[in-house]
Amino acid sequence: MRTSGETLDHFWAVVPAGGSGTRLWPLSRAGAPKFLHDLTSSGRTLVQSTWDRLVPLATPQRLLLVTGEVHARAVGDQLPQLERGNLLLEPSPRDSMAAIGLAAAVVHRRDPEAVVGSFAADHLIPDARAFGGAVRQAVAVAQQGSVVTIGIEPTSPSTGFGYIRTGDAMDVEGAPDAFRATGFTEKPDSATAQQYLATGDYRWNAGMFVSRADVLLGHLEAQLPQLHAGLLELAEAHEDLPAHKAADVVERVWPTLTKIAIDHAIAEPVAAAGGVAVVRGRFSWDDVGDWDALASLVPDLGTGSAVRVIGDLEHVVTQDSTGVVVPRGNRTVAVIGLDDVVVVDTDDAVLVTTRSRAQEVKQVVEALRAKGRADLL
Amino acid sequence: MRTSGETLDHFWAVVPAGGSGTRLWPLSRAGAPKFLHDLTSSGRTLVQSTWDRLVPLATPQRLLLVTGEVHARAVGDQLPQLERGNLLLEPSPRDSMAAIGLAAAVVHRRDPEAVVGSFAADHLIPDARAFGGAVRQAVAVAQQGSVVTIGIEPTSPSTGFGYIRTGDAMDVEGAPDAFRATGFTEKPDSATAQQYLATGDYRWNAGMFVSRADVLLGHLEAQLPQLHAGLLELAEAHEDLPAHKAADVVERVWPTLTKIAIDHAIAEPVAAAGGVAVVRGRFSWDDVGDWDALASLVPDLGTGSAVRVIGDLEHVVTQDSTGVVVPRGNRTVAVIGLDDVVVVDTDDAVLVTTRSRAQEVKQVVEALRAKGRADLL
Repeated sequence: MRTSGETLDHFWAVVPAGGSGTRLWPLSRAGAPKFLHDLTSSGRTLVQSTWDRLVPLATPQRLLLVTGEVHARAVGDQLPQLERGNLLLEPSPRDSMAAIGLAAAVVHRRDPEAVVGSFAADHLIPDARAFGGAVRQAVAVAQQGSVVTIGIEPTSPSTGFGYIRTGDAMDVEGAPDAFRATGFTEKPDSATAQQYLATGDYRWNAGMFVSRADVLLGHLEAQLPQLHAGLLELAEAHEDLPAHKAADVVERVWPTLTKIAIDHAIAEPVAAAGGVAVVRGRFSWDDVGDWDALASLVPDLGTGSAVRVIGDLEHVVTQDSTGVVVPRGNRTVAVIGLDDVVVVDTDDAVLVTTRSRAQEVKQVVEALRAKGRADLL
Repeated sequence: MRTSGETLDHFWAVVPAGGSGTRLWPLSRAGAPKFLHDLTSSGRTLVQSTWDRLVPLATPQRLLLVTGEVHARAVGDQLPQLERGNLLLEPSPRDSMAAIGLAAAVVHRRDPEAVVGSFAADHLIPDARAFGGAVRQAVAVAQQGSVVTIGIEPTSPSTGFGYIRTGDAMDVEGAPDAFRATGFTEKPDSATAQQYLATGDYRWNAGMFVSRADVLLGHLEAQLPQLHAGLLELAEAHEDLPAHKAADVVERVWPTLTKIAIDHAIAEPVAAAGGVAVVRGRFSWDDVGDWDALASLVPDLGTGSAVRVIGDLEHVVTQDSTGVVVPRGNRTVAVIGLDDVVVVDTDDAVLVTTRSRAQEVKQVVEALRAKGRADLL
């Protein structure tokens, strides 16, 4: 096994790349979800940035990606270094436990001492170094047998994220920021979120889980034995069978897998039993839930305009306006006299709304679905 | 000469088709100005609707159109019945006096008893019958030797139009709505416009002038003898010379023509001398100056939405919004949570503004010109 100053021995990264991202329509589509887009005009798509953050820690040999069969080609195009055997394809969405569990089962066959870390393909984390430091601590804690999550220091009482409650510090060598996790919460209302912040005990749940593969599979076997058995069979087929025979197994087993998020399947019950740790992540993070969130995340490019442009500045003319313009239709977008406006221009659809109404984009997508406009979804 | 129940003997219609219509960008462009567009989704462009209103009064034989050389082909495509010899082409814009004067000079050579009526190519007049009735009265008055304008009954104290002040009734047979015109005003401020309305003596100046050709040319000769001489020479060349020789005359004479509006050249000085009449037009009229004006003019198509759509309803999805959407880019336009919004979508540019800021579109066009984006103008 190769090691380097940064690379973590036995650390395997898993990237579940799913979701439709309807709240980022019309850029994000069923056929090209959020993770395939360069939402911030950084020059790299979200899944490419995720790769860039993880590969120094895991090497390409130990970086697996799980995605829908329909996205296989786009992922392959965007990540030419992704190894063939490290791309796991889902015939249909089965939620995060199946995706991560399958990857853990595959990894466990390859490296019985593996520590698996799962990280979404479509989050924004500008500071890769701070992220890597948190992963390093999480791996150190996970090697002791805990399931470890990285909890983000909240910077506002967001109602858009779930929270993790932290308990006592753990005193693990090399992990000064590790605490017991005493509970997970769903997205809170505003008053609750403010209470959470006031206590200082809560972290944002960024869906980052780090665990020894054997520990994760052990919890899965205890909680959901049938799902566990199905995933082991699929992992064996993926590793040992020729493609056409593996396909038969997938066709038979895949539809039987329980659809459940890893939070509900493992994190919550194991946390209740004291088996989950949280490492405090002191880096900025966002899941870019909608255009409003994205508008906050895009730096002012010094255009002298109060409108943030995500794309080619040459395509945008504004006058006395604030907000965000996303010119991706290769056309000129002119905005006059609107505050906190959101304009997203693509080849076949243009969205005009405000930052405060950005969440309602989802309903427009539903309206289009109801009208039979699958071509636009 | 043919006559019918509607056709007016010796009446010749002239349509100056110019202007760039920058306030209706991005639909209206230098290469395809306002008059070439079907702004209201009526099925006919503005110049076609103008033709439709005038041809019953004048017949195609007596309907002339004056436009820029660059628009010759588009006009020909839109008006297949327009006779070749009735299309007068301007090598460069020389304002309305040159355009109308040239047409009057051509018409006078064909019919010394001609009454010429000039009507813009890009105004909206839904009630062609009421319009025809006003023209009929104007012709009756013009035959007595006056220059006649049709003044529109104001329905609001608009600051976007010029006004005509009316004096005594004229008692011309067949023209019960004819009055002396005692003056013309530029666009007034709001307080002045309200005073105008309160007196009941003011009409909107819609730029419609009706006059015997010999009378018009006589006034022109008195006011601007050099312009008059140039136009006579151009008319003779147009009527009597082969094309290549006529082109030589145009090339020599055209650049010498005085650039002046007919209002300043004739209407104002002749009105001061008591030679102008006004016929009250009791029909709705608009020059569709900007997107705000257009939004007011478009009927609610019963979509159940508070957003007016000028174009294919199938291309528009709205939620909790008011305003106007003009989908001309063959793409879906989605609008959420905006009031009095204006969205104009075309192949290479999309405009987003509000009705109250619609006049500032002109400045965006200027900004694009300054950026060297002639392709978008």
